[in-house]
Amino acid sequence: MKVIKYPARDTWTEIVRRPYHDCDSIDPIVSQILDDVRARGDDAVRDYGRRFDGVELLDLEVSAPEFASAANDISDELKNAILVAKKNIETFHNVPFEDGREVETTDGVFCWRRRVAIEKVGLYVPGGTASLFSTVLMLAIPARLAGCRETVMFSPPAGDGKINPVTLYAAQLCGVTKFYKIGGAQAIAAMAYGTKTVPSVYKIFGPGNQFVTEAKRQVSRAGVAIDMLAGPSEVAVLADETANPTFVAADLLSQAEHGPDSQVLFVSTSDQLIDRVLSEIKRQITTLPRREYAEQALCQSNAVLVGDVNTGLDLTNEYAPEHLIIATELAEEVARGVVNAGSVFVGNLACESAGDYASGTNHTLPTNGSSRAFSGLSVESFTKTITFQRITREGLRNLGPSIEVMARAEGLNAHEQAVSIRLESFGGAECSIL
Amino acid sequence: MKVIKYPARDTWTEIVRRPYHDCDSIDPIVSQILDDVRARGDDAVRDYGRRFDGVELLDLEVSAPEFASAANDISDELKNAILVAKKNIETFHNVPFEDGREVETTDGVFCWRRRVAIEKVGLYVPGGTASLFSTVLMLAIPARLAGCRETVMFSPPAGDGKINPVTLYAAQLCGVTKFYKIGGAQAIAAMAYGTKTVPSVYKIFGPGNQFVTEAKRQVSRAGVAIDMLAGPSEVAVLADETANPTFVAADLLSQAEHGPDSQVLFVSTSDQLIDRVLSEIKRQITTLPRREYAEQALCQSNAVLVGDVNTGLDLTNEYAPEHLIIATELAEEVARGVVNAGSVFVGNLACESAGDYASGTNHTLPTNGSSRAFSGLSVESFTKTITFQRITREGLRNLGPSIEVMARAEGLNAHEQAVSIRLESFGGAECSIL
Repeated sequence: MKVIKYPARDTWTEIVRRPYHDCDSIDPIVSQILDDVRARGDDAVRDYGRRFDGVELLDLEVSAPEFASAANDISDELKNAILVAKKNIETFHNVPFEDGREVETTDGVFCWRRRVAIEKVGLYVPGGTASLFSTVLMLAIPARLAGCRETVMFSPPAGDGKINPVTLYAAQLCGVTKFYKIGGAQAIAAMAYGTKTVPSVYKIFGPGNQFVTEAKRQVSRAGVAIDMLAGPSEVAVLADETANPTFVAADLLSQAEHGPDSQVLFVSTSDQLIDRVLSEIKRQITTLPRREYAEQALCQSNAVLVGDVNTGLDLTNEYAPEHLIIATELAEEVARGVVNAGSVFVGNLACESAGDYASGTNHTLPTNGSSRAFSGLSVESFTKTITFQRITREGLRNLGPSIEVMARAEGLNAHEQAVSIRLESFGGAECSIL
Repeated sequence: MKVIKYPARDTWTEIVRRPYHDCDSIDPIVSQILDDVRARGDDAVRDYGRRFDGVELLDLEVSAPEFASAANDISDELKNAILVAKKNIETFHNVPFEDGREVETTDGVFCWRRRVAIEKVGLYVPGGTASLFSTVLMLAIPARLAGCRETVMFSPPAGDGKINPVTLYAAQLCGVTKFYKIGGAQAIAAMAYGTKTVPSVYKIFGPGNQFVTEAKRQVSRAGVAIDMLAGPSEVAVLADETANPTFVAADLLSQAEHGPDSQVLFVSTSDQLIDRVLSEIKRQITTLPRREYAEQALCQSNAVLVGDVNTGLDLTNEYAPEHLIIATELAEEVARGVVNAGSVFVGNLACESAGDYASGTNHTLPTNGSSRAFSGLSVESFTKTITFQRITREGLRNLGPSIEVMARAEGLNAHEQAVSIRLESFGGAECSIL
């Protein structure tokens, strides 16, 4: 880590800048996969599965027996842990929709709003050496709580054509019954356009590699909604002299092990703490299986010494991290000042891994500074709102003249006429035409 | 309008399909404007203003005297109408944030969520012959209610270098104090990247022509949030024999007058109503100044006869219109079955122009079928949510083991270690290190 002491504010833009990732080079590759799946459907999906996942599949969908046997292949310890996480995530996400209070904005003019589940959603779970079953929980639980009518899940199969049993166990537990063994850009294409086997969806969720991300970006142009564009994971730690250097080091490492492009930003008011955290990192890193990733990530990261906690908070707000750990005195008070972050871990004991797995909050969070304008996933991400209005005769008498004046001023005479024709139809008295 | 009687369900996809608009041709033009503004800032903005708006500007920002004189140039009638609309929009949009109820998901594990205003937002108001002051209200009111710290507005100036006084009056009324005379793709570029004069923003709102829309799409790739990609405006009317044909015709025309690419879909259970609406349209259209637009739009639109109201509702749900008018018996009951629409007008008297201007609902709505997954603008669009968690020692004892098991199963050992190190530090008893 590079240590920066008391940097001037006009150098902060440089400190909070993320490394630039060029995606232009994969644009045409992804765009060709999308076009191909759109044109050839399942055949194209199978071809890319053969090419990228090295697997020849007759059945693209996970079968009932495959689902059924999944639970047998997992330890009880892991099953129990997943049940604990599921319960917490459900409890936290299960906030009732704030539905339909009718507002009478003018006498006789009633407006209300209804939150409605998105009917069809697709959830993407990345493949790789380990099962990312925690992503299954984070996507499928809010989808089910929202009440989406059709929830389909996608993940690339292993070389033997199977999906990891932990992934299937978690999916089943969360009510997912349609699961396709398709990964990469071709999975996103299948969700967006549909094939003979795969139903198309209205919104696509879930993280993935740069091909998946680019495919999401491209189909979003074609009108399919997406949750967000995931970048490399990141954490900021804001700590004062009351922080525990052993814990802080462990937290920075748990972020850094994600991959060489992970980002950590360590902001502290204590020079001594920075020193102790750096030596702790050296000590702890030696035993980590993913040590190489962590070393590369830390190499590109900064430890920043600031004059006081408020300055530090200003800096993390400017950074707008995906995860923010606040290990300071009166951490809850400091947390009230957070305006840009995805998820915040308050105090010495709230480690990021708690939120990654089981505290109850969602781990699908805005990266790359986008927490300035975006939220992490919640049940709302699986819904949209519809507004409604009804107007009585009295209401149109009250409001109509204002609408007429404004429509005329905007040069939209048919808009005016839609009101005038109604007002004229009442005349002054009751009118049988209604 | 083309009349389609009792179409089979497998032909609906064709009926609800929107005309395809090719945007590829303007991609490179827009991308060049963005790059240029990014590189040359205000100079580039001025150059494009000269080229596209035909105006040479020294000051890009609206001055205090310009704001001050705006109110003098508008009739009292219009000022009053705008005040009525503002009051209604404020009343409807002013729903308090559902903040921070703390949920104890496991004994000792506390999670909560806070809704926070996006700090910097940019609002785009299209130019043209008439002032689109209603767009000012629909964007600036929720921005102010959300509590955005910095709200800047953009609109292309007229040939005399001025912004329409109604636009300025409405902007001022809604608390907008920074207003830039910049339009088109260069306005979006200035908001996204900032220039010497123009501050950059985190999220860009507002409709515009295809250059503005394409620019929003392109900057969204660079990480700037956008509200939505606006397509041509559209309405669906669902009506039975109780509907008033004069009103229905007026509503269809008020949509059709927006432009030749506007879409209307008229769905009815009554053959007779369709006939009467078509003749009413012929009668009413003759007096409309924007008759030519309306005729072209109607030419490409369908009137569909269905067997019953439920089938009609299924069809409009599949169409997922921006606006939906329900002119049937028991319209409120029918409205409960709406799952895909932007804003719904319930009953014979709720004309679309009411929502366009003054009922209180927002008129910035998802078009082109995107109401399947997107909502119209609300105060929430100007905010994001942040999740928080704090964990007591008891909480980590309860939850820690589950996190350890799951992190290990995902092969993320540093994630596990962040928990283990903390649990070890307590030992079984109190531990001074905390």
